[in-house]
Amino acid sequence: MSKTAEIFCIGTEVLIGDIVNTNAAYISRRLSETGINVYHHTVCGDNPERIKKCLDIAFDRSDIVVTTGGLGPTYDDITKEIIASKLGLEMYEDKEVLARITSFFDKRGLKMTENNRKQALIPKGAVIFENIHGTADGIALQSGGKTVIMLPGPPREMEPMLENSVIPYLKSFSDHILVSSNVHIFGIGESTVESLLSDLMKSSVNPTVAPYVNAGEVRLRVTASGKTESEAKKLISETEKKISDILGNYVYGIDVPSIEYVLVNKLLSQNKKIAFAESCTGGLISKRLTDVPGASGVFCCGFVTYSNEAKTKMLGVSESTLKAYGAVSVQTACEMASGAMSKSGSDIALSVTGVAGPSGGTEEKPVGTVCIGIAVKGKGARAKKLFLGGHKGNQRDFIRTLTASNAFKTALDELDGIS
Amino acid sequence: MSKTAEIFCIGTEVLIGDIVNTNAAYISRRLSETGINVYHHTVCGDNPERIKKCLDIAFDRSDIVVTTGGLGPTYDDITKEIIASKLGLEMYEDKEVLARITSFFDKRGLKMTENNRKQALIPKGAVIFENIHGTADGIALQSGGKTVIMLPGPPREMEPMLENSVIPYLKSFSDHILVSSNVHIFGIGESTVESLLSDLMKSSVNPTVAPYVNAGEVRLRVTASGKTESEAKKLISETEKKISDILGNYVYGIDVPSIEYVLVNKLLSQNKKIAFAESCTGGLISKRLTDVPGASGVFCCGFVTYSNEAKTKMLGVSESTLKAYGAVSVQTACEMASGAMSKSGSDIALSVTGVAGPSGGTEEKPVGTVCIGIAVKGKGARAKKLFLGGHKGNQRDFIRTLTASNAFKTALDELDGIS
Repeated sequence: MSKTAEIFCIGTEVLIGDIVNTNAAYISRRLSETGINVYHHTVCGDNPERIKKCLDIAFDRSDIVVTTGGLGPTYDDITKEIIASKLGLEMYEDKEVLARITSFFDKRGLKMTENNRKQALIPKGAVIFENIHGTADGIALQSGGKTVIMLPGPPREMEPMLENSVIPYLKSFSDHILVSSNVHIFGIGESTVESLLSDLMKSSVNPTVAPYVNAGEVRLRVTASGKTESEAKKLISETEKKISDILGNYVYGIDVPSIEYVLVNKLLSQNKKIAFAESCTGGLISKRLTDVPGASGVFCCGFVTYSNEAKTKMLGVSESTLKAYGAVSVQTACEMASGAMSKSGSDIALSVTGVAGPSGGTEEKPVGTVCIGIAVKGKGARAKKLFLGGHKGNQRDFIRTLTASNAFKTALDELDGIS
Repeated sequence: MSKTAEIFCIGTEVLIGDIVNTNAAYISRRLSETGINVYHHTVCGDNPERIKKCLDIAFDRSDIVVTTGGLGPTYDDITKEIIASKLGLEMYEDKEVLARITSFFDKRGLKMTENNRKQALIPKGAVIFENIHGTADGIALQSGGKTVIMLPGPPREMEPMLENSVIPYLKSFSDHILVSSNVHIFGIGESTVESLLSDLMKSSVNPTVAPYVNAGEVRLRVTASGKTESEAKKLISETEKKISDILGNYVYGIDVPSIEYVLVNKLLSQNKKIAFAESCTGGLISKRLTDVPGASGVFCCGFVTYSNEAKTKMLGVSESTLKAYGAVSVQTACEMASGAMSKSGSDIALSVTGVAGPSGGTEEKPVGTVCIGIAVKGKGARAKKLFLGGHKGNQRDFIRTLTASNAFKTALDELDGIS
């Protein structure tokens, strides 16, 4: 019988809608993966009376209560104080925590203000989770069969604390272990993935296989339960293999941060350099590649040629081609890629040109029409035309993001020799 | 005495963390601006017992309960049914609603399934809010001094319904209205803003002035209450003027989407074209400028020159300069900007070169050292060196984002003639 949890966010800024409560989603996903059922989310402001009442409700209906926020140094940060008094626990000033807070300020050449001492006050019997990005440590308490875990509000402080300290702490109470992995897929939609894997997914009990879609990419989360971590990992790798056998090259990585990360590392391993010629993406492809630390080892340069004039001037795209076929054409894409490769001296070059919208669409080339070109040393250039539809939310962002991802996948396939 | 509200989201997908509850933030912001105090957010899954209990709690502590989700056609969409039975209201099949649902399917050449009839069942005495993007209409009920409003879960259905129907419905109960505006500031930190405006902010009651910080930018939200919209707006504009008088040029816009948006429109109004030479930002500056629809009217081109070789090859930065001063230097930044302007034929060109980290820092040039150059037709080039510290979270993202924003501000100041 798995435990039930409630995520209780304390912060007026969330209640007035200035901040979206992404913490609740993040914590819920990780707790679910740990085998804990999250049954409620609650948010209330920095108001002692309302916090107390919400805590009473949470303790009444949940085994585990995870709070976020209200651990800061200011007068309205009262989560710790209220929970300690509710559980009848005294607070003491923890020497180690105080030393950590002091050195946090020293390292940054800042003076620690008196109110920061407050953050070293810990309820008796608490387990302390170190905050590697701030001064508000996390705290876990056990009382009357209930577990309460207090985490800081800023995601950059909360997330590593959850991963490094809280999840291991919670797993220590469980008699089985859940392990998850993510299979990253690009080039086919969710429905296609589900139909190709229908037998596998329908029959999946342990491991379970759940699909997630984001920015035109499909991610399959494989979650296995086992008595030991190695037992769970063995189950996962078997299922990963089945998925890869069926989806083949559409799987671009397992537990990788991004498709551009995979591309950078493939280029490094093949000791090749890449260049980009971007029109509709306006620099996004270069930006995403250079989000990957170490990209400098494979990145020659990028040309952001938004106008026809720039395409001609910077890449040597012929005016006759632009005139005959237009900027959004496979012919222009080919010349852009060839130009980028020759001007930069790269081994491989990608080009994109398209209609990202909201305006600029025509009957013949509606918004979402995109051409992706690739030039390869010794192989010349080629290009393909795509129509990127089915956006949710900001269409322009969606088209630009998906165009960049498609370009990355085109390069990956080329490097894998399956083009 | 303004009313208190609770946003109650019903949906298992939110509880397991597959969806972030952006609806709660959106509704909270709009209700706050309407003068309604949102005191609680609650989320629970598609479970009748837990939904009932959460509703009891919500009705007990809130004047207005706004639910999202659970209005669909499937068996687990039960929000309407549970609330109707809780309030002891019978349901009837609404002819108009049914007609609308039927035509919704006809228009799309789809066959209406029998379970969609369920969506035409309305509790007696309800006010109906038409759903222009789907088949799940919204519903408002008044009972025992409480107001309950049921909205569909998908944001693209919920948001227009909230704007077009729910806000006007709620305003009809209110005797005053709140209006907000945002003053956007760049170049000074939150603490400096607060000290410069301390008198204004301390004494601010109507309008209130609240600071928010994001990606190195400070935003002041000015919120005024008035009997009429024009009365509130008058109060706001007076406070906006006071802020601008004190902060002067640090205020780059009021109620603007971004600093790049302001730059694009200033360039358009002065009929000037811009080019970029980017090293550490790796295309982010071009990307952000082209996030603004219409940027093509002012954007010549971008050079992403990550390596020294590219700086020399593409921009004509002299090898001796790179050798003598290094890539991260005001000298290199100047030559990058000059090169970008001459190669592109733009009126103005920005360049950035710096150490974004995580690696690459030295004693002399630690991570966060950034040089920003600007070249202006007829004025030559100049550059400044900055140290961007104090990041929260991902340092590399922070430095790249702040570098881009600083570059945009440099161009804005130049165009404003205050450089």
